[in-house]
Amino acid sequence: MTSRERSYAVVGAGAVGGLYGGQLQRAGFPVHFLFHQDYAHVVNHGLRIDSWQGDFYLPQVQAYPQVSQMPACDVVIVAIKTLQNHLLTELLPPLLKPDGIVLLLQNGLGGEEWVAKIIGPKRVIAGLCFVSSNKIGPGHIHHLDYGSVHLAEYGDNYQVKGITQGMLAIQSDFQESGIPVQLGEDWVLSRWQKLVWNIPFNGLSVIFNATTDQMMSSEDARYLIKKLMQEVVVGAAAWGRTIADEFLQEMIEKTEKMKPYRTSMKIDYEQRRPLEIEAIIGHPWRSAQSQGVDLTHIQMLYHQLKFLDQFNRDCLI
Amino acid sequence: MTSRERSYAVVGAGAVGGLYGGQLQRAGFPVHFLFHQDYAHVVNHGLRIDSWQGDFYLPQVQAYPQVSQMPACDVVIVAIKTLQNHLLTELLPPLLKPDGIVLLLQNGLGGEEWVAKIIGPKRVIAGLCFVSSNKIGPGHIHHLDYGSVHLAEYGDNYQVKGITQGMLAIQSDFQESGIPVQLGEDWVLSRWQKLVWNIPFNGLSVIFNATTDQMMSSEDARYLIKKLMQEVVVGAAAWGRTIADEFLQEMIEKTEKMKPYRTSMKIDYEQRRPLEIEAIIGHPWRSAQSQGVDLTHIQMLYHQLKFLDQFNRDCLI
Repeated sequence: MTSRERSYAVVGAGAVGGLYGGQLQRAGFPVHFLFHQDYAHVVNHGLRIDSWQGDFYLPQVQAYPQVSQMPACDVVIVAIKTLQNHLLTELLPPLLKPDGIVLLLQNGLGGEEWVAKIIGPKRVIAGLCFVSSNKIGPGHIHHLDYGSVHLAEYGDNYQVKGITQGMLAIQSDFQESGIPVQLGEDWVLSRWQKLVWNIPFNGLSVIFNATTDQMMSSEDARYLIKKLMQEVVVGAAAWGRTIADEFLQEMIEKTEKMKPYRTSMKIDYEQRRPLEIEAIIGHPWRSAQSQGVDLTHIQMLYHQLKFLDQFNRDCLI
Repeated sequence: MTSRERSYAVVGAGAVGGLYGGQLQRAGFPVHFLFHQDYAHVVNHGLRIDSWQGDFYLPQVQAYPQVSQMPACDVVIVAIKTLQNHLLTELLPPLLKPDGIVLLLQNGLGGEEWVAKIIGPKRVIAGLCFVSSNKIGPGHIHHLDYGSVHLAEYGDNYQVKGITQGMLAIQSDFQESGIPVQLGEDWVLSRWQKLVWNIPFNGLSVIFNATTDQMMSSEDARYLIKKLMQEVVVGAAAWGRTIADEFLQEMIEKTEKMKPYRTSMKIDYEQRRPLEIEAIIGHPWRSAQSQGVDLTHIQMLYHQLKFLDQFNRDCLI
């Protein structure tokens, strides 16, 4: 198969799925988008991406309101919120060609295991997005900063799978579309590395009602960010994975240089939507606990967020 | 001296000082109130106390705008915020008769040591208020629930002083005024016992922006309340003081039965006033740390509150 023949489906065309799906289509790949609320708008007005790398507009996209109308694809990009992962049981099987691959662009832990239960363990790739992107309206995405994707092949029972053909194929397509890609040999390490950023910044952004720059400007916030990052390192170590101090330092420096950013969890909180607490905070904490390791600060953050999430949505009643 | 001859000065006639000073005056004690912002209002309109035990109104109180006009008294009740304790260096000496006593009605740690530096170590009594009371306007106090005061004589170097004459005198006056009093032999134990309530409820009420009943209705908040209480017990143990599990249970049950309450720290936060973080959270945490004991949850709460306090008041600019 020559590269541009590979077809993509995007399930969850929001800040992340809309951005990367849009970039793939712009590069000439056949991309099929599943939309929910935004379907009618996108059919009529297309997909608009305001990007720090240059705005672009796709007046026509192959948009679908339901999966039954979509063709089976080579790669299915899953970029819905983890809270909706129960939908994948029905969504994924018809969307995938027999040798199709699922690329899971989500934060937190547990997604790969769940997808593997649905389609088997040998065609799941973890995708970790180092990107600042927000959906700011129907079919309208604001890509603020960064943009790379880190790929790692899922392996049952925390196995290390190395660099696979599927990863290389996606890397090739993404890079042709202007999306920087790094490859990881060990998906478990990759997932925990991503948590180094997500746990402190997503979690504290809700507790503090603050953007990344506001947090970075406070010694107290920085102290907690560092503590939480160090606990993520302890969690990774509980699974035999080593994250170096330099990686933490790099995450802090990248965040310092980042344009002021509202994390996805903060945006969900502001919109009184349910927060991805279990995938991003609860699952990692319990995962370490299952190995006999207590992540005290992360557990405290977990219960605080649970209260705030519940209380925030109770106010809707 | 027969009991009603004992004169009282009240420094900080807010939710606590106004309530107890008002009750003493109602019972016939000479009470001299130092007011700051509310002076003119109280001179013209008196002091109004809406209490669950029966409202009362004192049309005339002996109010003063500055300490130089006040007589020296037998007992000086200090009920200002701990953040203003630096003022005591000038306020206290002229207000105290040569054998006068200071009764410190404040939350947190560190107040007695500070007062002892100013007036010497032998005339300081710690007063711990188990009361739900808010100032709701100038010279206007709402006493919602409970109302007892726990007294314990300060001793240099964490000494246990037992039951003293000064404590008995104040107990007698307070009880004649309808204020229930318990006596404690060990002020250090009493202070840490009070923290069992103040650290979780004051601290989390700001993080959660929630009242006591809202917190008690959440399993996640209750989990954190319990964890923080248990750490206070560990802090007390670092100083050789034992707080039994039953005491924690009693605090939780009392809070369950309490009318919905906004803690003083939450009210300060809402009003964008500085929070008593150092006295209530920081001092206890550092005090345990000085004994080689880490209070992890309390330290995390401390840094969270420091961020929120700073950020809350920065917004005023």
